[in-house]
Amino acid sequence: MTLSHTSTLSLGRLLLTGAAGGLGKVLRPRLRARTTLLRLSDVAAMDPAGPGEEVQQAALEDRAAVHRLLEGMDAVVHLGGISTEQPFDAIVPANIVGTYNLYEAARKHGVRRVVFASSNHVTGYYRQDEVISPDMPMRPDGYYGISKAFGESLSRFYYDRYGIETVCVRIGSSFPEPRDRRMLATWLSYDDLERVVVASLTTPKAGHSVIYGVSDNTPGWWDNTSARHIGYRPQDSSEPFRASREAAQPQVDPEDPAVMYQAGGFVRMGPFE
Amino acid sequence: MTLSHTSTLSLGRLLLTGAAGGLGKVLRPRLRARTTLLRLSDVAAMDPAGPGEEVQQAALEDRAAVHRLLEGMDAVVHLGGISTEQPFDAIVPANIVGTYNLYEAARKHGVRRVVFASSNHVTGYYRQDEVISPDMPMRPDGYYGISKAFGESLSRFYYDRYGIETVCVRIGSSFPEPRDRRMLATWLSYDDLERVVVASLTTPKAGHSVIYGVSDNTPGWWDNTSARHIGYRPQDSSEPFRASREAAQPQVDPEDPAVMYQAGGFVRMGPFE
Amino acid sequence: MTLSHTSTLSLGRLLLTGAAGGLGKVLRPRLRARTTLLRLSDVAAMDPAGPGEEVQQAALEDRAAVHRLLEGMDAVVHLGGISTEQPFDAIVPANIVGTYNLYEAARKHGVRRVVFASSNHVTGYYRQDEVISPDMPMRPDGYYGISKAFGESLSRFYYDRYGIETVCVRIGSSFPEPRDRRMLATWLSYDDLERVVVASLTTPKAGHSVIYGVSDNTPGWWDNTSARHIGYRPQDSSEPFRASREAAQPQVDPEDPAVMYQAGGFVRMGPFE
Amino acid sequence: MTLSHTSTLSLGRLLLTGAAGGLGKVLRPRLRARTTLLRLSDVAAMDPAGPGEEVQQAALEDRAAVHRLLEGMDAVVHLGGISTEQPFDAIVPANIVGTYNLYEAARKHGVRRVVFASSNHVTGYYRQDEVISPDMPMRPDGYYGISKAFGESLSRFYYDRYGIETVCVRIGSSFPEPRDRRMLATWLSYDDLERVVVASLTTPKAGHSVIYGVSDNTPGWWDNTSARHIGYRPQDSSEPFRASREAAQPQVDPEDPAVMYQAGGFVRMGPFE
Amino acid sequence: MTLSHTSTLSLGRLLLTGAAGGLGKVLRPRLRARTTLLRLSDVAAMDPAGPGEEVQQAALEDRAAVHRLLEGMDAVVHLGGISTEQPFDAIVPANIVGTYNLYEAARKHGVRRVVFASSNHVTGYYRQDEVISPDMPMRPDGYYGISKAFGESLSRFYYDRYGIETVCVRIGSSFPEPRDRRMLATWLSYDDLERVVVASLTTPKAGHSVIYGVSDNTPGWWDNTSARHIGYRPQDSSEPFRASREAAQPQVDPEDPAVMYQAGGFVRMGPFE
Amino acid sequence: MTLSHTSTLSLGRLLLTGAAGGLGKVLRPRLRARTTLLRLSDVAAMDPAGPGEEVQQAALEDRAAVHRLLEGMDAVVHLGGISTEQPFDAIVPANIVGTYNLYEAARKHGVRRVVFASSNHVTGYYRQDEVISPDMPMRPDGYYGISKAFGESLSRFYYDRYGIETVCVRIGSSFPEPRDRRMLATWLSYDDLERVVVASLTTPKAGHSVIYGVSDNTPGWWDNTSARHIGYRPQDSSEPFRASREAAQPQVDPEDPAVMYQAGGFVRMGPFE
Repeated sequence: MTLSHTSTLSLGRLLLTGAAGGLGKVLRPRLRARTTLLRLSDVAAMDPAGPGEEVQQAALEDRAAVHRLLEGMDAVVHLGGISTEQPFDAIVPANIVGTYNLYEAARKHGVRRVVFASSNHVTGYYRQDEVISPDMPMRPDGYYGISKAFGESLSRFYYDRYGIETVCVRIGSSFPEPRDRRMLATWLSYDDLERVVVASLTTPKAGHSVIYGVSDNTPGWWDNTSARHIGYRPQDSSEPFRASREAAQPQVDPEDPAVMYQAGGFVRMGPFE
Repeated sequence: MTLSHTSTLSLGRLLLTGAAGGLGKVLRPRLRARTTLLRLSDVAAMDPAGPGEEVQQAALEDRAAVHRLLEGMDAVVHLGGISTEQPFDAIVPANIVGTYNLYEAARKHGVRRVVFASSNHVTGYYRQDEVISPDMPMRPDGYYGISKAFGESLSRFYYDRYGIETVCVRIGSSFPEPRDRRMLATWLSYDDLERVVVASLTTPKAGHSVIYGVSDNTPGWWDNTSARHIGYRPQDSSEPFRASREAAQPQVDPEDPAVMYQAGGFVRMGPFE
Repeated sequence: MTLSHTSTLSLGRLLLTGAAGGLGKVLRPRLRARTTLLRLSDVAAMDPAGPGEEVQQAALEDRAAVHRLLEGMDAVVHLGGISTEQPFDAIVPANIVGTYNLYEAARKHGVRRVVFASSNHVTGYYRQDEVISPDMPMRPDGYYGISKAFGESLSRFYYDRYGIETVCVRIGSSFPEPRDRRMLATWLSYDDLERVVVASLTTPKAGHSVIYGVSDNTPGWWDNTSARHIGYRPQDSSEPFRASREAAQPQVDPEDPAVMYQAGGFVRMGPFE
Repeated sequence: MTLSHTSTLSLGRLLLTGAAGGLGKVLRPRLRARTTLLRLSDVAAMDPAGPGEEVQQAALEDRAAVHRLLEGMDAVVHLGGISTEQPFDAIVPANIVGTYNLYEAARKHGVRRVVFASSNHVTGYYRQDEVISPDMPMRPDGYYGISKAFGESLSRFYYDRYGIETVCVRIGSSFPEPRDRRMLATWLSYDDLERVVVASLTTPKAGHSVIYGVSDNTPGWWDNTSARHIGYRPQDSSEPFRASREAAQPQVDPEDPAVMYQAGGFVRMGPFE
Repeated sequence: MTLSHTSTLSLGRLLLTGAAGGLGKVLRPRLRARTTLLRLSDVAAMDPAGPGEEVQQAALEDRAAVHRLLEGMDAVVHLGGISTEQPFDAIVPANIVGTYNLYEAARKHGVRRVVFASSNHVTGYYRQDEVISPDMPMRPDGYYGISKAFGESLSRFYYDRYGIETVCVRIGSSFPEPRDRRMLATWLSYDDLERVVVASLTTPKAGHSVIYGVSDNTPGWWDNTSARHIGYRPQDSSEPFRASREAAQPQVDPEDPAVMYQAGGFVRMGPFE
Repeated sequence: MTLSHTSTLSLGRLLLTGAAGGLGKVLRPRLRARTTLLRLSDVAAMDPAGPGEEVQQAALEDRAAVHRLLEGMDAVVHLGGISTEQPFDAIVPANIVGTYNLYEAARKHGVRRVVFASSNHVTGYYRQDEVISPDMPMRPDGYYGISKAFGESLSRFYYDRYGIETVCVRIGSSFPEPRDRRMLATWLSYDDLERVVVASLTTPKAGHSVIYGVSDNTPGWWDNTSARHIGYRPQDSSEPFRASREAAQPQVDPEDPAVMYQAGGFVRMGPFE
């Protein structure tokens, strides 16, 4: 069985937010190769536009700017916003107001599909000895996770009310390699990241779907069965990295909250005051 | 079998937010009779404090004021904030930032239990021909519902992280009588409102629980089985009002979105721009 | 809590098929009191039309006659067809072809709601020591049950494709009194029969719903929770008849297939050749 | 709706073990009134046999004695054995070996039905803010609970292998009145105890069923829906006792393991060495 | 891990109905190689019998002819009947009456296992953004699907009542290659078709099982977990065809009913009058 | 995708009970290669201790001896006890009392993790045409299975009460090759046995987990999804042995209890008196 093929459909005119961030930089060249136009945005500075690209620096809380971003787009990959645990006040503008701005702009400009970078941190307070599925109640592990839960709720509303399709991809840990023992379970390779984003954009009917963005790792906390319709099948695994990561961290304490909960180290963040 | 008893425990020092609103006014005298101190708050003016009462006018987005509200309290009944569908910008300060302020203040002041007035509108986009339970994914029907979904997520976090117990009561339609045919399913009598609030405050172990606040109506959309541990059992029913409400509204169109979805008329609100 | 009220809405122009049968005769006067016009039909002769009634004798397999039946109707209560276990060939014309004829006629004449008299015999091969719900796979106990399973499938299609709403009421055992020990579990009183039919006709949104038609008996095999939205709440119980029915049948053998399966005596019928 | 009737069937020749214990004494006169012969047994001395009674003192670990107990019986109500938390070695003879002896004797003597007094302590390590059903995995809270879990497994085997029917009744707290706040959830009145035992003995098909033995209390931890087929409907409630029990115990700590878990005070027992 | 093996058991004396149809022609030589006798039947003319074959032309509604077909057979692969959406009257004889004829003949002639070619069209009105399992309620998308739902019910009865085992294989789209984008999800390769049929015939205990007949495609709508006991594991995938099928159909409208529902183009068929 | 890696973590100081048995002999050299100290125990004689090994012959019912076994250990792989169906009295000492002794010793000596060799025979009375998961109620097929069910309950208690983690591995049939047709479903290769044991010992958070120990066979009765967090992924399959095992056993009777139930031949064992 050969699994190396994935969609080769053009992604049309696509907006990528968060383009200056870690995953934004990874996806930029990969999406550019598949788009007729790739519009890039971030609150931070980005590399200048190459062929087939547009660059628009903008803060997500800047409503007018966000409306300009969506203009003429077919779809959005929304990585923008705060992507680490931070005080609540830091998270509201970009992740609460900014996500609202994005969906309102999508509605006004007739954009029909969004890939929303949600996070495994919306369910971080499930235990590491549980396997969960996307339809279980959310248990966020911090303000960042709460803001992603908000985005999932908001996008569900925009689908039910206005028909804008969203795939919420609860991204695990997307790095070149798994960095520690926790990531043996949560790792999403860059190639698999591309696969899940492309599948989300090209599946004929996305509806409002929630999926975990994770590679085909041997230890698994998340059961994606309910979202197999998306057409995402991971092809990488953390297994080749297991020996080295275990060697670096041979002892863990199962009673440590960071080991007990899927959140990992997020359980130790805060309170901030 | 006699069902007329309910808890007679003292509710101690209790904060009631939203005290100037419709349900706040209903609960004020009922809770005062059970508390050692009832602190009342609202952004609007309230009747002056009677014996055993304190009145503190405050906006929920005023962090310092909210922290003063929680000082010395044993528990909170949080009705405050916007309780109708409104533009998003109107909802953020009271319902997003304000709920955060409330939980942060509870954490700092050691308040251990909150009754959070959530809403049936967190699941308004389920259909009227479905019976749902509190652990099914949320499908809010507007910005108000989204803000209540946010509050449920936030309170879950404060329980998982800090042990602050919350009962999220997804209130149906609490009025003296059911006003229309939809309310034959969603009605919560004032006596049952009191019962569900008192049960939520006095159950020995609340954890983080989600329950629908609804009377024992014959047509039912919500299955509270998973929250029977709270000790709430409704004793009223919309049935005596059925004939008159049907007579006033003999024809409904099952293809009308306001009839198709549990949201009712909320499906027609917005967009606001 | 008073439970004696039920809908007093007019049932409009209503077709009742199977009007010459046992339950048809029970429902005829009860429905006439609530309709503007009650059209009665059966393959057998019926009492002449009284005020507010029309009588049209017709075989369900007579397509043209069935189309005349549906003309001008608002809704249908479809009791017609074979209602006992019989050889397959006897069941096809009325229950397979006849039910198709009815739904095609409903589609052509714009009739928007049907109450379909299904039967507990669609699930008769579940065991008496199981409690089942309407969304579990069907296990019919004979050709009659198979034909009712067919009717449920057919009506689901007419809802999904053409929006014709149906409540499939899986009737237990509707008699003046429970006749034997099995009926202590399956009994549907005539008053509760009326209640479930009226609720099915008057609920604002029926969609395609499946419900067991059973009174509030103490031994229960069927869990109607998933159809509480219909607004049916039984008010009778087999309990007052328990002593006499047990006295008449003090010994049963739990290994007897008629005791092992919910089907009861139907497990002994057939094969017919 | 009148719920005062229950089965009046004769219970035939019945063995009651544990007849000298608290519940044995409650059930003795109630069962004697319904049996043709009531054989009573306990390791301790019992009141002498009255009319229609036989008394056989026996230890459950005495295999020959247990075989004599079962001889000629139609059914068994097995309350015998240790019914409190004790060191493991104390529990093995009566609850492990003794229960095996009982089922082997039932097999040899052709006894076809057993009511096995299991206990809520087989699931004591679920939390008080969970509602559980009998088909969820067991989480015993001590050696006593483990021995009851063993009895449930053993009786399942005797049903699957030899057709001996058992109703496992996970008894809550059966006392004249609820004694503390926990028992507001777990109380089983003596009348309801009788009802659940009689229903278990007289239901036509018991199979192997697991049910919680609890009254219709307002706070509820256990959902008996899956065993409604038994024909048990409680008619008592802890509600009349709520005020006094709460007054006696106004403060509880939700972080106290005895409040956190359904086990209550059992979480504090042991280790024994 | 090598997955290339499958059962090499002899299939004994096997009846293949629908032998003149597309899948019948595919299976004929593959099954002949594994049978001691392969009896072929169809209403249409077939190629003459080769070695180890018998050919009996027959209409399924011809009861006597069907009884002759089953005589002396060990098992049946029932592909016969109408396999496209057609007016109801065209479907009744072969798919309703004919399937009954087949099972009655199996009963009379002691045939113990049937592989029934059901169809994904029994669940065509589920959405393409849902993943469903075989135990969910059926939602047929036309008369053809309804007739297959009937066959599943009928075969369940023949198992529960007479012990005749059936594997209902809900065939996706079995063609040499996936023909369009929908078939990227529904494709069943001819080799996998053979695998699922052989597994269904040779599994020691089939009971009454329902399984989707689909290859190991990346986009998946159907979860076969509940039927893993059959011993079917697909070894082909639509993935190598994805690029060309997407290129041929780059744009689809997610609001098009043929894209919204798993039925695909079947949602556009009918009404026929 | 490369699946050949598995954990290379040191297993520390490990006790292996049942070391003289079939699987004990298989695991001894494999575990020795990964441990700093491997203590071996059995009631029978074992090969003398090699480098890095200790040998302590002991009966599990010898409490003092078992306590000596656990002293200084980091973890236990508990294969010891009776592993075939035998009379109850033969099973009590080693499997009931012995397992208690082991856990008490673990508690006293601070051993934090146990791999408990449970058995597929705890669910042997499910049917071969069912796919089951570890959280379904147990249905043991004999005294051996009952004793393993006891061990699962006991270990759950020691986790809930004392935090001792256990992975219950319900071992299928672990032999060099599958021996008969049943083992095509139940086979666990020796390499996969090692994998599941090592994964159970090295997963950061085991909690109390229940998993089936089975290779990646094509016919599958057991769904391990809920325990994917353990990090066990089988890499062997019974498929290469299918042809020869089927050839040796071409005919099976699906009505034979040994074919009907997952227990296989265990359904024929006993009664023993």
